[in-house]
Amino acid sequence: MFVLVNLKAYPRDPVEVAEAAASVDSGAAEIAIAPQTAHIDAVAETGVQTWAQHLSPVEHGSHTGSTLAEAAADAGATGTLLNHSENRLKLADIDGSLDAADRVGFDTCVCANNPDQIRAAAALGPDAVAVEPPELIGSGTPVSKADPDIVRDAVEAAESVDPTVDVYCGAGISTGEDVVAARELGAEGVLLASGVAKADDPAAALADLVDPL
Amino acid sequence: MFVLVNLKAYPRDPVEVAEAAASVDSGAAEIAIAPQTAHIDAVAETGVQTWAQHLSPVEHGSHTGSTLAEAAADAGATGTLLNHSENRLKLADIDGSLDAADRVGFDTCVCANNPDQIRAAAALGPDAVAVEPPELIGSGTPVSKADPDIVRDAVEAAESVDPTVDVYCGAGISTGEDVVAARELGAEGVLLASGVAKADDPAAALADLVDPL
Amino acid sequence: MFVLVNLKAYPRDPVEVAEAAASVDSGAAEIAIAPQTAHIDAVAETGVQTWAQHLSPVEHGSHTGSTLAEAAADAGATGTLLNHSENRLKLADIDGSLDAADRVGFDTCVCANNPDQIRAAAALGPDAVAVEPPELIGSGTPVSKADPDIVRDAVEAAESVDPTVDVYCGAGISTGEDVVAARELGAEGVLLASGVAKADDPAAALADLVDPL
Amino acid sequence: MFVLVNLKAYPRDPVEVAEAAASVDSGAAEIAIAPQTAHIDAVAETGVQTWAQHLSPVEHGSHTGSTLAEAAADAGATGTLLNHSENRLKLADIDGSLDAADRVGFDTCVCANNPDQIRAAAALGPDAVAVEPPELIGSGTPVSKADPDIVRDAVEAAESVDPTVDVYCGAGISTGEDVVAARELGAEGVLLASGVAKADDPAAALADLVDPL
Repeated sequence: MFVLVNLKAYPRDPVEVAEAAASVDSGAAEIAIAPQTAHIDAVAETGVQTWAQHLSPVEHGSHTGSTLAEAAADAGATGTLLNHSENRLKLADIDGSLDAADRVGFDTCVCANNPDQIRAAAALGPDAVAVEPPELIGSGTPVSKADPDIVRDAVEAAESVDPTVDVYCGAGISTGEDVVAARELGAEGVLLASGVAKADDPAAALADLVDPL
Repeated sequence: MFVLVNLKAYPRDPVEVAEAAASVDSGAAEIAIAPQTAHIDAVAETGVQTWAQHLSPVEHGSHTGSTLAEAAADAGATGTLLNHSENRLKLADIDGSLDAADRVGFDTCVCANNPDQIRAAAALGPDAVAVEPPELIGSGTPVSKADPDIVRDAVEAAESVDPTVDVYCGAGISTGEDVVAARELGAEGVLLASGVAKADDPAAALADLVDPL
Repeated sequence: MFVLVNLKAYPRDPVEVAEAAASVDSGAAEIAIAPQTAHIDAVAETGVQTWAQHLSPVEHGSHTGSTLAEAAADAGATGTLLNHSENRLKLADIDGSLDAADRVGFDTCVCANNPDQIRAAAALGPDAVAVEPPELIGSGTPVSKADPDIVRDAVEAAESVDPTVDVYCGAGISTGEDVVAARELGAEGVLLASGVAKADDPAAALADLVDPL
Repeated sequence: MFVLVNLKAYPRDPVEVAEAAASVDSGAAEIAIAPQTAHIDAVAETGVQTWAQHLSPVEHGSHTGSTLAEAAADAGATGTLLNHSENRLKLADIDGSLDAADRVGFDTCVCANNPDQIRAAAALGPDAVAVEPPELIGSGTPVSKADPDIVRDAVEAAESVDPTVDVYCGAGISTGEDVVAARELGAEGVLLASGVAKADDPAAALADLVDPL
């Protein structure tokens, strides 16, 4: 089971969370941290798997203010989120950013809101898609409990287009029980943010998350 | 065969082109005109099938500067382009704009550049997708001649995701021969712009286009 | 005093509101209606002053899905809002859209949130700027009452950059008293939306608005 | 004289350029390097003054894929470009990003194309504005030679709104002569990119640039 902790723009020290993640005996879980781009370097140095929160659909060249895949890779990232609900992208740019990720061998996860968009995202050939109903983000109510059908529908939607694309489950995940529920619905990973990034003790929160796996 | 004339922001009088289209004995062809939003009313009054060039993904409400589906319908439109290469949309907004189009019963055509994006567009369930390689737009070289494989690939891509979605072929179409070639490659429609909008005699240009059908 | 009724994407029949506006003996007030682009034609035919809610920063050419100034003018508009809080624009595009408005002789009003942005907007040389604190939009609490200083500050900010630029006051205006208060704070116009567009009797709402002027 | 080397998304090793900059006896010049966000850490470690190419207008919180000012500061940046012609921003976002830069005490430079936009940018209160006529970017023809009036006009425009705002001069700068010409026209800094980033010997290119100062 893949567990991605998205640090967003939270005030939490990213190295503290990264070290917590590195310290967890993850057993059946693979934990990765997605910090701010400027923090990739410091997070990757802890040895934890490090993801970008976004990549620009550009190649080397005149692109001021972009997030170049090669630069994220230099800093130590090995994967990237794309099209998070807080950073919606143009269809053509998701395609371009997946090409950018391919250039540097990143794992990729394209987020989407509903089964139709999951199908579209899966059709672009990422490694994974993530279903994150916007009304559940940060709610503390896991999508696996609030709306299990949306996870099942997402798994089915991705499968109908490309069975090699994994489905991750985001929004409201905060306990090991939520992770198990997501797995039982067919998800091969979870995305979470505040459940770890805002925890008093991120190491304990992560240990709880992966404990039942 | 569906023939959509996109008037873009050309200086051409839209009513002149609309009347030309209405005058053509289209036989096996169905001709529609996509004018500026502010011209929909005048174009639709000629009796020609009228499309919007874009719809916003909004419902009724506080959305200043949007292009509301209901307003386009009031003015007489019955279809819409979405995600044209000159107006690329976020994946979530293509989905939302298709919902908006459904509310008013519009025909829909989502544009895309390459087979991967065609698959993604088709996965969202429009009536049609259009493949328009950007390097051929306005080139005078029809995609059916410059790169017939991209049309074949687009037809195959759409079919693999949803066989009910038609494929239109854009970019560089200017003669009846081009339309026939597009049809032979599996396209059920063509998009064109300058070939008619910049013609000395739009009625003659349209008559030539549909003549061999 | 200039009174602009922004119909946004409301379900209200735009012609009904336009006829109401045309029927009001506006005396000291000049009333204009800003409908959806597709409704400009129908609204302008009532004889009321008609504004666009937005113009694109483009010239004639290959710009699918744009709102061309010339098309809005053809349909009967004579002015435009720009950079409404529901349709924020890039700085360079506000400049470009003002150029587009100049080509067709439109009156222009650039919206902004705070005195710094008012100064920036005024520096681009529009006919007017509008201050609309986002927290008051649709609140029913007029900015002239909730935060009179922001109107005074906006007037001063615009004046410091270009004394020929008028200041309009938006957000929360719904009564004639609000309009008078705005005028006393130095505003030469008001923007309103739901106060008229959602009124049971738009003609009565408009008559009340301009009555004390 | 301030000399900002924008590394854009060039393939050049950013640390190599940073070390070159650190090695130049800059005398009357202050040299800064603006790398990719993911490279800020490594560039700042060389001791050279390090700028971001962009900051997002966000505070701490749920903003996936943003460029948080605090994260750029953590990594060692002390200044930021905003609204570069390759990364045009909404007016409201330039204002918000300047607020973000203020939170972390960054120097700020807002780019713009023409005197009207320079006035607008200066009205937002940055430390500097940069005039970069897009047609000269990467041309090798310095704006100070191709169009000296645009620099003079920019200096005058900024001064008319806020005399404390410096004016930098971008586009086509590649020699010490260009820098001197810019200074004589009233600029207090220059922005350059390919002139150093694509030079065979960046240290020599930088030494030449600052030599006549």
